[in-house]
Amino acid sequence: MENSRRRGRPGHDQGAVLTAAVRLFNTHGYDATSMFDIAESLGITKSTLYHHVSGKEQLLTMAVDRALGALEEAAREAIGSEAPAVVRLRNLIRASVLVLADRLEFVTLLLRVHGNTVAEQHAVARRRAFDRIVTDLVRQAQAEGGVRADVDPATAARLIFGMVNSLIEWYRPDKGAPDSIADTVTALAFDGLRSH
Amino acid sequence: MENSRRRGRPGHDQGAVLTAAVRLFNTHGYDATSMFDIAESLGITKSTLYHHVSGKEQLLTMAVDRALGALEEAAREAIGSEAPAVVRLRNLIRASVLVLADRLEFVTLLLRVHGNTVAEQHAVARRRAFDRIVTDLVRQAQAEGGVRADVDPATAARLIFGMVNSLIEWYRPDKGAPDSIADTVTALAFDGLRSH
Repeated sequence: MENSRRRGRPGHDQGAVLTAAVRLFNTHGYDATSMFDIAESLGITKSTLYHHVSGKEQLLTMAVDRALGALEEAAREAIGSEAPAVVRLRNLIRASVLVLADRLEFVTLLLRVHGNTVAEQHAVARRRAFDRIVTDLVRQAQAEGGVRADVDPATAARLIFGMVNSLIEWYRPDKGAPDSIADTVTALAFDGLRSH
Repeated sequence: MENSRRRGRPGHDQGAVLTAAVRLFNTHGYDATSMFDIAESLGITKSTLYHHVSGKEQLLTMAVDRALGALEEAAREAIGSEAPAVVRLRNLIRASVLVLADRLEFVTLLLRVHGNTVAEQHAVARRRAFDRIVTDLVRQAQAEGGVRADVDPATAARLIFGMVNSLIEWYRPDKGAPDSIADTVTALAFDGLRSH
């Protein structure tokens, strides 16, 4: 713990700057938020802020990394495993729910990014690569007979991750433990609402 | 057809004004869009625009009505029917997918509204009332034995509508006919991905 603390006034470490920036991006939009707004919300000057980060694009890249880094690690595990595709798909869905619950503000920003700056386009490209991995897993699981063959794999991947990603709209710690939400998501994703 | 046309230059009827406004609200955000921006995008003056609508709030209310009016009608049918709750829930999910596919831009605006103006708060309250109807249907269907009892009804309602609402992120007419998307959503919502 001691090592992760920084000396100095609040707002004077990069983690605090990132947290403040992401909060403003999520509330007012990335475009509408200036470096001045971020400095002001931390009670520091703009030149002090530039001492920590090169600009808004660096903050966006760092924030998106917090979200995508964890999701991509889960995807790598799903790809690397020798388990049947349906098991790997289930593990990836479960892991993604846990990442969302743990990094809600970073994933919120990631999912709202649609813009045209280089940093935004790069984030969108990484999201698409993740989506392709999910679609491929659905397709493999269909080929192995673990997932129903009557749904288009890309549509199924989008709908299941629509369910996962909806957490950014409604999940707060008082809605349930992340493990229990992950159980509900995987139960609905694989077996649906119907009582069996 | 003839009756629905209006005389005069383009941008000179309320439908065209609404379409232009919703496009700008969805692209730049409701807060960031001014009446001047809307007038400019239609190639008319601000005073001509005020001849059609009283202001941004009226445009938001009209847009949200296009989305919620249709969803609330589907909800009324689901409540009024004598069918088992699980059938009514399925019909409501199916009808909601069709509303989203048909009124994508209006629903997109509805789902992004989070603000503090009276019009925005009113839209949020109507959304919540709709969500409560879905949750109640899940609860009734659980009591009747049609829906699995091991999921929290509010969480299940949020997740299933997370799947439905994800259409605003990815659905375009080239992704499939609305009926076929509605079939996939209801299949996944009730029976999940697993092959049976």
